[in-house]
Amino acid sequence: MTRSCRNLLLLVAALALHAETGAEAWLRYERLANPPQLPAVVAIQGGGPLLRTAQQEIIRGLRGMTGRILRAEPSTPHEPAIILRTGASLAPDAYTLQSERGNILISAANDRGALYGAFALLRHIALGEPIPNETQSPRVAARWVNEWNNLDGTIERGYAGRSIFWDNGKVRDDLTRVSEYARLLASLGINACAINNVNANPKIVSAEFVPQIAKIADAMRPWGVRVAIAVDFGSPKSVGGLDTFDPLDGKVIAWWKGRFDEIYRAVPDFAGVVLKADSEGRVGPSTYNRSHADAANVVARALAPHGGILFYRGFVYDHHMDWNNPKNDRARAAYDNFVPLDGKFDSNVIIQIKNGPIDFQVREPASPLFGALEKTNRAIELQITQEYFGQARHTVYLVPYWKDALDFDLQVKRSGTPVKSLVAGFVGVSNVGLDENWTGNQLSQANLYGFGRLAWNPDLTSDRIVDEWTRLTFGADPKVLSTIKDIQLTSWRTYENYTGPLGLQTLTDITGNHYSVNIEASERNGWGQWHRADEHGVGMDRTVATGTGYAGQYRPGVARLFESVETCPDDLLLFFHHVPYTHKLHSGKTVAQYLYDSHYDGAARVEQYAREWMSLDKAVDEQRYHEILAQLEYQAGQAIVWRDAVTRYFAKLSGIPDAQGRVGNYPGRVEAEAMQLTGYTAIDITPWEAASGSKAVTCPSGTCAASLKFTGTPGWHDLWVEYFDMPAGVAGYRVLVGTQLVDQWTAADRIPARRLDAGASTRRIIRGLALRPGDEIRIEGVPDRADPAALDYIEIH
Amino acid sequence: MTRSCRNLLLLVAALALHAETGAEAWLRYERLANPPQLPAVVAIQGGGPLLRTAQQEIIRGLRGMTGRILRAEPSTPHEPAIILRTGASLAPDAYTLQSERGNILISAANDRGALYGAFALLRHIALGEPIPNETQSPRVAARWVNEWNNLDGTIERGYAGRSIFWDNGKVRDDLTRVSEYARLLASLGINACAINNVNANPKIVSAEFVPQIAKIADAMRPWGVRVAIAVDFGSPKSVGGLDTFDPLDGKVIAWWKGRFDEIYRAVPDFAGVVLKADSEGRVGPSTYNRSHADAANVVARALAPHGGILFYRGFVYDHHMDWNNPKNDRARAAYDNFVPLDGKFDSNVIIQIKNGPIDFQVREPASPLFGALEKTNRAIELQITQEYFGQARHTVYLVPYWKDALDFDLQVKRSGTPVKSLVAGFVGVSNVGLDENWTGNQLSQANLYGFGRLAWNPDLTSDRIVDEWTRLTFGADPKVLSTIKDIQLTSWRTYENYTGPLGLQTLTDITGNHYSVNIEASERNGWGQWHRADEHGVGMDRTVATGTGYAGQYRPGVARLFESVETCPDDLLLFFHHVPYTHKLHSGKTVAQYLYDSHYDGAARVEQYAREWMSLDKAVDEQRYHEILAQLEYQAGQAIVWRDAVTRYFAKLSGIPDAQGRVGNYPGRVEAEAMQLTGYTAIDITPWEAASGSKAVTCPSGTCAASLKFTGTPGWHDLWVEYFDMPAGVAGYRVLVGTQLVDQWTAADRIPARRLDAGASTRRIIRGLALRPGDEIRIEGVPDRADPAALDYIEIH
Repeated sequence: MTRSCRNLLLLVAALALHAETGAEAWLRYERLANPPQLPAVVAIQGGGPLLRTAQQEIIRGLRGMTGRILRAEPSTPHEPAIILRTGASLAPDAYTLQSERGNILISAANDRGALYGAFALLRHIALGEPIPNETQSPRVAARWVNEWNNLDGTIERGYAGRSIFWDNGKVRDDLTRVSEYARLLASLGINACAINNVNANPKIVSAEFVPQIAKIADAMRPWGVRVAIAVDFGSPKSVGGLDTFDPLDGKVIAWWKGRFDEIYRAVPDFAGVVLKADSEGRVGPSTYNRSHADAANVVARALAPHGGILFYRGFVYDHHMDWNNPKNDRARAAYDNFVPLDGKFDSNVIIQIKNGPIDFQVREPASPLFGALEKTNRAIELQITQEYFGQARHTVYLVPYWKDALDFDLQVKRSGTPVKSLVAGFVGVSNVGLDENWTGNQLSQANLYGFGRLAWNPDLTSDRIVDEWTRLTFGADPKVLSTIKDIQLTSWRTYENYTGPLGLQTLTDITGNHYSVNIEASERNGWGQWHRADEHGVGMDRTVATGTGYAGQYRPGVARLFESVETCPDDLLLFFHHVPYTHKLHSGKTVAQYLYDSHYDGAARVEQYAREWMSLDKAVDEQRYHEILAQLEYQAGQAIVWRDAVTRYFAKLSGIPDAQGRVGNYPGRVEAEAMQLTGYTAIDITPWEAASGSKAVTCPSGTCAASLKFTGTPGWHDLWVEYFDMPAGVAGYRVLVGTQLVDQWTAADRIPARRLDAGASTRRIIRGLALRPGDEIRIEGVPDRADPAALDYIEIH
Repeated sequence: MTRSCRNLLLLVAALALHAETGAEAWLRYERLANPPQLPAVVAIQGGGPLLRTAQQEIIRGLRGMTGRILRAEPSTPHEPAIILRTGASLAPDAYTLQSERGNILISAANDRGALYGAFALLRHIALGEPIPNETQSPRVAARWVNEWNNLDGTIERGYAGRSIFWDNGKVRDDLTRVSEYARLLASLGINACAINNVNANPKIVSAEFVPQIAKIADAMRPWGVRVAIAVDFGSPKSVGGLDTFDPLDGKVIAWWKGRFDEIYRAVPDFAGVVLKADSEGRVGPSTYNRSHADAANVVARALAPHGGILFYRGFVYDHHMDWNNPKNDRARAAYDNFVPLDGKFDSNVIIQIKNGPIDFQVREPASPLFGALEKTNRAIELQITQEYFGQARHTVYLVPYWKDALDFDLQVKRSGTPVKSLVAGFVGVSNVGLDENWTGNQLSQANLYGFGRLAWNPDLTSDRIVDEWTRLTFGADPKVLSTIKDIQLTSWRTYENYTGPLGLQTLTDITGNHYSVNIEASERNGWGQWHRADEHGVGMDRTVATGTGYAGQYRPGVARLFESVETCPDDLLLFFHHVPYTHKLHSGKTVAQYLYDSHYDGAARVEQYAREWMSLDKAVDEQRYHEILAQLEYQAGQAIVWRDAVTRYFAKLSGIPDAQGRVGNYPGRVEAEAMQLTGYTAIDITPWEAASGSKAVTCPSGTCAASLKFTGTPGWHDLWVEYFDMPAGVAGYRVLVGTQLVDQWTAADRIPARRLDAGASTRRIIRGLALRPGDEIRIEGVPDRADPAALDYIEIH
């Protein structure tokens, strides 16, 4: 960066000094209207460097919330104090809060526990709660996040900018954001972070990366967050120069041991390793006919002397499966791969299992593998980054979705064994980025917060978690609180309603961006995310009786529930059963009509979110108000794109009309290809459901125009312009009524579109137009590079 | 700028898209809670290009305020409309608003009048007022602003960044801000703008600048603002290559004519010229023993054929006056220079007279010249930019100050001739800059607004003007309105109280920055801004009886008022009279005690402004809330610097103690030079009153420290650190209590300091410190270039 540029940015930063950008997340420590009476001293008794972090954080937090600067004292104070103590008889990382003779005691076994106690104290104060006498212990010891960051600085499935860790093949010079991130993690009790993509670059274990890993560890260590890495199983060969990576080969065993001995010399508190092998093109033990246990153990044994642990990913499946074989089922894969190996894994190996058997789809049953393994450590992998949940462009609060799995009773010993009782670890795929607000969407921060809180205590309710998060992040205004909570708590159902209800999974572009609607993308390929829709019916038969047998991977009580179309919950019906469109749900509605209704309901609900949000103007700070409004308005437009695509698709395939007559009938809509075109030419869009009328118009060069004569009633109208915003260029648009320019904009939004389809489709609304019969409405587009200023339709309301 | 830098800034700009920056000023057009019923059409009847501007502005304004996009129609609408019409029998620029059968008619003689009517309609709607049937005519035809912009892009006495017109010796490539400024001016009815410094670069009239002037004129013309320039009287010789600039020389006469013929070919609506001659080092007619009338007329005659006018500045005085001669008086100069020439100026010459006889001081009597000239056009020059009013670092609402002159009855024909009735023009020295908020201080925008409104109608009250401005700029929240109005309406008296009460004039650094306190800067030099304070008394004797005779320049009724110490208003006492410090004012208070009391009152009042402002947190948008809070807190600190300097100065000089015991007695204050110093060394500050204890400590290099043991009572304390922020470097500061870092900052504020004195003095407040007896308080400073991290004192409260 040039010097003048840095100065400019400093100036901008100074001006924005007080703006609420989301960078502070839930640690805003906003001034309290009625701060509690507190001691004036924060003292430390006991050992451990994190006590000083805790002391400073209490001072920082109370300075923000009360306007007073407490005294940091090293040991025994002469007056009442907040006292941080280690050496208590508690579980590691647990803490006790206790008020006693004017003192507030924060006791823990280790200094990390005391830091967590400090954050808990600050949270109680920020929430306006009395300070309780309480002991809180984390449910599991391993509370990790995974960051799918590539060494070049990109992030696989990251939606908030580039990596905070890596840039251009090496560690970033400035790790300020890494320290700030570690603080956010520590405030939730997360104690380790894997800093590179599970699809690992083999170089991460090479000698040149050891000091780089150590530098990141140094940045996170003051917050008690230990560093881990993901490794490539072929490293002994590709990096180590051996002629094999066979896990039973002595050279390979020695090589892994040598690598981790060196890493531990530089990073003595190194947490461990994540390993993805024999899956989605990654090499693995199958090369040498070895088992996953062999693979896991060779790495785990290199870590064991240092206390490190290995997370071995259970996400192993064949992505070249034959779609024509009705018995093939990707959902079966994890169970089939790992159950035979139960008991063969070392004690410092944890199998990392996604919540559901497929891949973070909008609705999945809990993975049967949690209940099937008995002599193997299991962890649940939850995805904080919203890969199949709208990629930070849609608001979806994931805690209720995660709790759906965590609370699901797998009936290992009859009943009473929910998933949360079976796991020894929580792993969240976080993928924060350099965006100031960490998650790309202000409201998506609730997912990072919720993951951390659940990892500490999975019994917390979805309501409690979002209540905490909203108060901490936006303050205690009752209207703000109720509006945000309503949006968040209903957002999963809303998103499911317009993207994949009844267990269809997310009907997204599975071989492309994982974002926008593309119903057949998951059929007729080897990836196994099939829903098997045809003209007669829809759904994947996974019963034991007639299907793939997947239902039989559950213990008998659960298996019976899913096996029968009568007892299978409607929400998972099409995950387990292939039924005709006329099949009646428990509600009495047919599958076809439910598909139509849920999509219309979902789209209408997002429109309502945007309207509700507008009622918070001035109640929420300017920047976040406008960012969230823009996000919700965009989401409302995309929900209509989804709605129209899915309902038209199933109406056409099934031949069953919408009982309410909505599908295919869009009042006020005029297709761009039906307008009078100058320069614009109509093209077919693939898949056909990705554009209204299955066509768009594109402009090859110059300025093109699409126009029509208004024939409606005179009055105030809103004009919707549905257009395509391609990331590879910045097209310009103008809208005229007669000769009057009424709007102009450029298509420069950050949209995860890869081609001219539903992913690029977005909406501009021009409100309050005085239209009269005979008016010419004219949309002008100017293409730029690979953005052809394409139009789908207009709608006049 | 590099491409990546530009992208970064674009990103920042996009994020800040909705922030209230002040750029919109009073034309925010915020959505109204209850918009009135209005027609859906804006039509044009009549001629003139500004009708289209007016039509577009109405559409823009009503789109903002009502959310509806009215139809622009060219002529006769088929339905009720807002109709813009020219050709009415009205004065130029006047307008009539009229509601008639559902139509709203805006009628004017010329299209500029229709534009002003459009802005008036929008103002009534924005203020929530019913739309009146009214005709409004401007009091005077010439409503100008002067911009003291140098061609290199700097601005003489500009406090809001660099020039919007010029950069690096030529017109800016991007004149967007010029057009936006013209729109602001048009909204107030200002119809011309002089675009360069009155201390003019002779090159402005050269051929190479003609197209540049034309480019600026093109940017302002859509808003009806005509361009003028300031010229250097020596141009015929320095630019024209003649051997003379004698105004009676035929070659000179022809040269001026030739120049303006060429300018008018490029800019047919060129407004005219401002000329400063024979003053403050500018050349003038005295070189050839010619008169100011000769000088004015030679230029005016070159303008006359094209309809241009010449403003000839009355600000002519000798700046090498002998201080030792008690009869010398700069206040006399304008009258002495111009009254003998009355009747000798051409009809297109206007003498441009500052409100008072000196130079925009905090309190001056109205200039007698307004009443003395009878056969010469006069205009009043008011200074919007706050040269002697805190330079946008202090909030001073100048409308009451201006009205003090405008409403002053000069009794030309007995009574009934206030200044506003005697002038044919209003000229405001505006000096806006590239700062987003135009004026450098959000609250200073009220002065630009107020000047424009007064220029249109000088009968408007100060209250009405600030009421309008606040509602338009900050909205209608009653608490915001009352707080801002209270601050603005009392701000002049407050500022006067701590900078120069009783007619002392601004006790500022007259030969330096015109900003910070320096009481003797105006004595013992040729500039004539003297107050003649000695051990016995203070004030300038300007009586006829014993003084300079200046009082006799007024008509008899006014002269008598000022001549007598009994009838002279207290506020102007020391402007007209030299009195002992024991002289009793009309209030019964002595001059000495009044000087003490007013300074303490003034400083306390600014502290109160900052507290009142804090009650508007969340009621005012984030950015403006924090900018104004920072400004008021800084001003409160500077007011204490002024208070202490002036009161200590007069206590020492007069030997009269403060009856309330405050002067020289500062509870909780510890001089830096009295602290334990490591690396820091004490130096004397000049003038002695510019630092507490007359000393500061400075750090030559490395890190220096000043520390002391706290001996007060244990409890919560605020710590003030008074330090010096030098613009020529960015020093760093840290404050520790014991080993605990409690604050750190860099000295990087934009302060108009030129040396280590009161101008650089500023304050950091650290609130809510828990201090205990025996605590070591330690200030560490790290110098940077010419900023020696200097300290004045600390105060513990």
